[in-house]
Amino acid sequence: MSHIFKRRKKKSSSLPGTLEYTGERIEVPTKINLIKYNEQKILEEEIKSPEDYSTIIDEKSISWINIDGFQQLGIIAKIGSFYKIHPLVLEDILNVNQRPKIELFDNYICIILKLIEFEKNTNELSTEQISIIFGSNLVISFKEKESEIFIPIAERIQAAMGQIRKMKSDYLVYSLLDIIIDDYFEKLEKLGERIEILEVELIEKPTTKTLNEIYNLKNNFITLRKSIWPLREIINRLLRRESPLIHEHTEIYYRDIYDHIIQIVDTIEIYRDMLSNMLDIYLSSVSNRMNEIMKVLTIIATIFIPLTFITSLYGMNFINMPELNWDLGYPMILILLLIIAISMLIYFKKKKWL
Amino acid sequence: MSHIFKRRKKKSSSLPGTLEYTGERIEVPTKINLIKYNEQKILEEEIKSPEDYSTIIDEKSISWINIDGFQQLGIIAKIGSFYKIHPLVLEDILNVNQRPKIELFDNYICIILKLIEFEKNTNELSTEQISIIFGSNLVISFKEKESEIFIPIAERIQAAMGQIRKMKSDYLVYSLLDIIIDDYFEKLEKLGERIEILEVELIEKPTTKTLNEIYNLKNNFITLRKSIWPLREIINRLLRRESPLIHEHTEIYYRDIYDHIIQIVDTIEIYRDMLSNMLDIYLSSVSNRMNEIMKVLTIIATIFIPLTFITSLYGMNFINMPELNWDLGYPMILILLLIIAISMLIYFKKKKWL
Amino acid sequence: MSHIFKRRKKKSSSLPGTLEYTGERIEVPTKINLIKYNEQKILEEEIKSPEDYSTIIDEKSISWINIDGFQQLGIIAKIGSFYKIHPLVLEDILNVNQRPKIELFDNYICIILKLIEFEKNTNELSTEQISIIFGSNLVISFKEKESEIFIPIAERIQAAMGQIRKMKSDYLVYSLLDIIIDDYFEKLEKLGERIEILEVELIEKPTTKTLNEIYNLKNNFITLRKSIWPLREIINRLLRRESPLIHEHTEIYYRDIYDHIIQIVDTIEIYRDMLSNMLDIYLSSVSNRMNEIMKVLTIIATIFIPLTFITSLYGMNFINMPELNWDLGYPMILILLLIIAISMLIYFKKKKWL
Amino acid sequence: MSHIFKRRKKKSSSLPGTLEYTGERIEVPTKINLIKYNEQKILEEEIKSPEDYSTIIDEKSISWINIDGFQQLGIIAKIGSFYKIHPLVLEDILNVNQRPKIELFDNYICIILKLIEFEKNTNELSTEQISIIFGSNLVISFKEKESEIFIPIAERIQAAMGQIRKMKSDYLVYSLLDIIIDDYFEKLEKLGERIEILEVELIEKPTTKTLNEIYNLKNNFITLRKSIWPLREIINRLLRRESPLIHEHTEIYYRDIYDHIIQIVDTIEIYRDMLSNMLDIYLSSVSNRMNEIMKVLTIIATIFIPLTFITSLYGMNFINMPELNWDLGYPMILILLLIIAISMLIYFKKKKWL
Amino acid sequence: MSHIFKRRKKKSSSLPGTLEYTGERIEVPTKINLIKYNEQKILEEEIKSPEDYSTIIDEKSISWINIDGFQQLGIIAKIGSFYKIHPLVLEDILNVNQRPKIELFDNYICIILKLIEFEKNTNELSTEQISIIFGSNLVISFKEKESEIFIPIAERIQAAMGQIRKMKSDYLVYSLLDIIIDDYFEKLEKLGERIEILEVELIEKPTTKTLNEIYNLKNNFITLRKSIWPLREIINRLLRRESPLIHEHTEIYYRDIYDHIIQIVDTIEIYRDMLSNMLDIYLSSVSNRMNEIMKVLTIIATIFIPLTFITSLYGMNFINMPELNWDLGYPMILILLLIIAISMLIYFKKKKWL
Repeated sequence: MSHIFKRRKKKSSSLPGTLEYTGERIEVPTKINLIKYNEQKILEEEIKSPEDYSTIIDEKSISWINIDGFQQLGIIAKIGSFYKIHPLVLEDILNVNQRPKIELFDNYICIILKLIEFEKNTNELSTEQISIIFGSNLVISFKEKESEIFIPIAERIQAAMGQIRKMKSDYLVYSLLDIIIDDYFEKLEKLGERIEILEVELIEKPTTKTLNEIYNLKNNFITLRKSIWPLREIINRLLRRESPLIHEHTEIYYRDIYDHIIQIVDTIEIYRDMLSNMLDIYLSSVSNRMNEIMKVLTIIATIFIPLTFITSLYGMNFINMPELNWDLGYPMILILLLIIAISMLIYFKKKKWL
Repeated sequence: MSHIFKRRKKKSSSLPGTLEYTGERIEVPTKINLIKYNEQKILEEEIKSPEDYSTIIDEKSISWINIDGFQQLGIIAKIGSFYKIHPLVLEDILNVNQRPKIELFDNYICIILKLIEFEKNTNELSTEQISIIFGSNLVISFKEKESEIFIPIAERIQAAMGQIRKMKSDYLVYSLLDIIIDDYFEKLEKLGERIEILEVELIEKPTTKTLNEIYNLKNNFITLRKSIWPLREIINRLLRRESPLIHEHTEIYYRDIYDHIIQIVDTIEIYRDMLSNMLDIYLSSVSNRMNEIMKVLTIIATIFIPLTFITSLYGMNFINMPELNWDLGYPMILILLLIIAISMLIYFKKKKWL
Repeated sequence: MSHIFKRRKKKSSSLPGTLEYTGERIEVPTKINLIKYNEQKILEEEIKSPEDYSTIIDEKSISWINIDGFQQLGIIAKIGSFYKIHPLVLEDILNVNQRPKIELFDNYICIILKLIEFEKNTNELSTEQISIIFGSNLVISFKEKESEIFIPIAERIQAAMGQIRKMKSDYLVYSLLDIIIDDYFEKLEKLGERIEILEVELIEKPTTKTLNEIYNLKNNFITLRKSIWPLREIINRLLRRESPLIHEHTEIYYRDIYDHIIQIVDTIEIYRDMLSNMLDIYLSSVSNRMNEIMKVLTIIATIFIPLTFITSLYGMNFINMPELNWDLGYPMILILLLIIAISMLIYFKKKKWL
Repeated sequence: MSHIFKRRKKKSSSLPGTLEYTGERIEVPTKINLIKYNEQKILEEEIKSPEDYSTIIDEKSISWINIDGFQQLGIIAKIGSFYKIHPLVLEDILNVNQRPKIELFDNYICIILKLIEFEKNTNELSTEQISIIFGSNLVISFKEKESEIFIPIAERIQAAMGQIRKMKSDYLVYSLLDIIIDDYFEKLEKLGERIEILEVELIEKPTTKTLNEIYNLKNNFITLRKSIWPLREIINRLLRRESPLIHEHTEIYYRDIYDHIIQIVDTIEIYRDMLSNMLDIYLSSVSNRMNEIMKVLTIIATIFIPLTFITSLYGMNFINMPELNWDLGYPMILILLLIIAISMLIYFKKKKWL
Repeated sequence: MSHIFKRRKKKSSSLPGTLEYTGERIEVPTKINLIKYNEQKILEEEIKSPEDYSTIIDEKSISWINIDGFQQLGIIAKIGSFYKIHPLVLEDILNVNQRPKIELFDNYICIILKLIEFEKNTNELSTEQISIIFGSNLVISFKEKESEIFIPIAERIQAAMGQIRKMKSDYLVYSLLDIIIDDYFEKLEKLGERIEILEVELIEKPTTKTLNEIYNLKNNFITLRKSIWPLREIINRLLRRESPLIHEHTEIYYRDIYDHIIQIVDTIEIYRDMLSNMLDIYLSSVSNRMNEIMKVLTIIATIFIPLTFITSLYGMNFINMPELNWDLGYPMILILLLIIAISMLIYFKKKKWL
């Protein structure tokens, strides 16, 4: 589990502001898409040659550039210098182990946050970094890998659904954030289902597997919390409208997002509490079963050990053991054994072990 | 237990502001009641056709519209657009997994909170969402299902009991909140009774059932806390009179509600502490009983195992075992066994195991 | 224990401001005493007929009305209306399950707090509600039951001890609060003594009784904390002199009370920590004793089970067992058994079990 | 341990402002020393008759009066009234169970804090109260018992070491506080050494003594924290220079003290965490040893119980048991027993119990 | 582990402001290096004779003096007095048990922080103190021991890499802090790897060694947290630009450092949570294995003890035991034993022990 914290930004001796991608290297070329729209028209194209950037922005429409994959650092450096993004900001975007954060500049805002993924084989959580930079007519989104998360937004722009085509860049950013946060809910729901399954297992037949699953889920929630908690502060700073890029009429949308984040954080806390309770219950039920086992052992041993002593006594080979020669010796002993066994059982009954 | 967090607002790709009911679908038609009153007169009717709304509000009386059930979204959308309620607010009202919250607008306030219910079969807590929107002469209450919670208020208005007929809409809202919070106390009391029964069980005869009940109650209090904690902030914002809709002479009533919420939250914390203590005690008493069992086993085994060894020794068939031929061999051995048994018992006495 | 939280203010459908006593009903008539004093003279009388109230207050002296018992609601309602106390305040005074609180009005202050009592038979904590209402020349104290807590104050006024006769109503209120808080110290001291006894028990001979006592004490401290914690805020508000009823020269007295409350809350926290530690120690010592028991069992069993196997081996009735016919067979076996037993003992010595 | 919280200020019915010493009574007379100094000259004497006070203060030098022992309340009351100290402050100085606190008055400041002592026989912590009152040319220090803590300061003044003779009373107070806080470090260091010894014991051979020592140390840190935590606030208030008695050039010294207190509080928290960890480790290692013991028992029992059954089988006295008469019966049985024992051992090997 | 807190600043009776080195004494001479640079030129030399200091600073370049080792206090005192550093600051620099802190003066700032080291043999964390004093053209760094941590910065200045040669002293300080914080990440990564190894061990084969390692790591994180937590406040104060020495254009760099510290503190918290979880899992798996062992023992004992009783019964030597003389006695008994064993096995199957 802990490997997700292991990768670090760069060699400690490297220069601040050096662009370096810190994630896993997959040899997929960086892919850049542009959607340029206003209320009247829409233009959609893939940007291939890095010379196109100058023509992208125009005053009367919003340009959304989506960048998937950080393999070609040169392109990203070019975009950065073209739109005058501070080198430290670019470094943070590429350093995929950033804590979610917001940076406000005079003419643009940079938001870094995490997408939650379940790894297919291990069912473990992993995080993918998404960065959004936006100015008044430009939104640039950076994703570590190609993913389908933003497709519904693109479709909504194409179909001119809702008010997205009529609004400014801050509404587009809201839409991107909203879809990421909705995705958190879906992930939480899946974790919730695993907790429910665990609860049934815990009551019916707890095993070591149950225990490991509780442990893994607990660690998952630790990661989740780390990825989501800072979002509160991020949205809060947007809400306080510290930047003129956020307009008054989108405030209610950001407040809505804020409420959702609080709800997610609340739910994470609840699940963590429940998992802690489950661990306690697990320990208790292990103790209980041990108790059960000990009782059976004790009952069997306590009844038969004295009986076996008596039979063993009369198995001794002393010449002079008068009882052995009595005619009723054997039946008398049988009766004695029976009496001992029965009184033992009565004793256990009284002790409430039976 | 965890299923109550599972349902989520909408498909993550749906548009913000889309009206969608996220609770369980029961095919009961939405029911709309109107009570319109002032100090002199009162009018009560069920609203059937959705064209009636224009005549509802008049300047000189207070109109309380109560809506039960969210099955007919069209009616609710119509009400929303008629009274100019923001689409995101309507979406929140219908999305029954909202965290309790308050939204203040220029001419109306929206409060969303939870009603606590015990599910009849499983005794588990479930929550039902209640939303209240109010302006200066209008109060609209939305309930997921038809319930009897507001009936005493309606009766009080009809009978002109207390000062309700003389007061503004904020007093009506106070009355609605007050009756919901009083209901929390009743639910808390029932949970308190279950805790008391558990305490007796815990001391007299703790079983695995006791353990599961502790676990369930702990989870119940987690839910309860989640539903009630945000109310503090809600009432606090009303108390601060951030909106002109709250008048000075109702402040003392809202302060009273505030005190009750603090008391509920306190009591929840106390119960949670007590349940944690009970879990510790449970574990301790399980350990204690195990101890008890082990002691019995050890005493029996420790006394009889050496004795049986001796009898078994003289059960060997060696030809040349002189003791076997002694006349007093058998009684001497009996005395030896007795001495061993008695010294064992003295040893246990000294160890305080008997 | 939990029954102290169970009683609730009123039926949830009853009107706000309805006077209703929520404590246990004991058929003792409400008793009303008046002490009216200034530096020169003092008047003390029991008020029987409820018509006397008009003559009680005069500008030049302080009137202290003490009311014991809430059985005659009529009298209390009359007092309330006579001194123009808000109905919600009266309701809070009678609702003996209030959280300690302060309410500041223009011309009077209402303080509600708790007296701690040990129930005689069960040694459990219970709380009794005390309310104090005071204006510039009037102090009214309400007690659930008759108790001796305020007698020293009355005596001090009679004897003109200290400066009480020279001071305003806020000093009388300080005296009442001070004596209640001193009483908390005494109760804490008694609980401290029980903890000390428990500590000795824990080290010398912990039993299930010890465990239950720890559990009860923990719950007691939960109650205590709930009753005392809000006092901090209450005194703090008085200290901030939000009301003109608190004069500058009594500030140092209220600060003194404030320090005492902080000290009480500190001590409660310390005791709670100590009790948690004791529970851990209890669990550890139970585990330790189990260990001890297991060791004895294991030593006995491990020595004798192999020995018994050997004797049992030579107890077999095979015709052809050459050892049985050897002359030295028996002594050789005895030596063998001895060697096994001794090497076992050496093994245990090495394992540090002996 | 808990007895240190037990003593309380006074009988709850006694008058506020009554001087009463609440510590242990030792019949040692109160001892009063005066050091009066300025940059040029120094005067040192023991004050015997209580009439001398008027001549003590003069404008051009600083007078430090040190009072050891509270047995002669008359003298202390006289000093109090002479320097116009508020009776409640004097009461607090004598009531040695005060929480550390600061009181700022117009012309003097009172600081109450604790000296930490180890009781010689039991090694338990006890606290001794030290109070410091200072005005512009006067510093009065009150100690419960005579102790050597302030001697280095006196020597430094005599020898005119450092800048103490050139500075105001606030620097003297700083020196007194600094030496007390340095003493806390020494006490912490001793507790640290005991923790280190415990750590070794815990790994090498944990016993019940180890457990009791952990418990005692935990309680010690609870006391320590209670005595030191409030100092933060005390020094902070001095740092904020709420009183003109603290001059700007001593601010850096008080900030230094503040840093030390933070460091002490930090270290206490670290030790508490370590002790909690040690308790967990203790419990784990007890469980581990139990496991170890159980394994030995189980291996022995599981091997020999079946073997003994077989030998016991052929010890039966049935007439018709053909195996008994076979020539190779005995060796065959011996081989069978060997096979069973070996396969058992292989099973345990596979289970990793050996 | 605890020895790192043990060393303390000085004898409690020594004068404030006395220079005294509190670390381990190693007889290595103090080594002083100077790098003096501006955009055009660079000068690098080792300072031997302590008379050189006057020529070091000039208005047009930045002088970085690095001091390794505190053995020659005279030199350090001379530097201190030369640059007018307050004696208490020098004392703090030499007292290597300081909590990380910042002190702002009119013309210089002093930052004290910790370098984390793993001790080579024991793998335990130790801390080394680094202090940085800087004014407008001067930066002095003090290190307890010679270490290579700052070498990359020196190389960067020599090679004029990045913007370091163009920037003011605050950028140099940023570079020093940044390289220290990057070093924390590397240390954290190593601890993270140890946690990962522990996780595998925990699931595969937990031993007492695992437990001790968990305990040691937990203590390591306690130390780490203590060393890093105060850095938040330090950088925050620099960010707030309370001093004119921090220029606006370096603010973004300090904000970057701030983010990294938050991330480190977050990660430490996550690791601590994970270690706590691991301890729970360890305890659970120990219980589980005990359970496993108990089951085997109980199954074996419960099957064979009754069987052995029966065989022992027919090993008695009574004359009159008719069964012994039956022809089918022996086979019948064998069948009986088989039936008992099989029914036991069925019982265990039902109990889910097999």
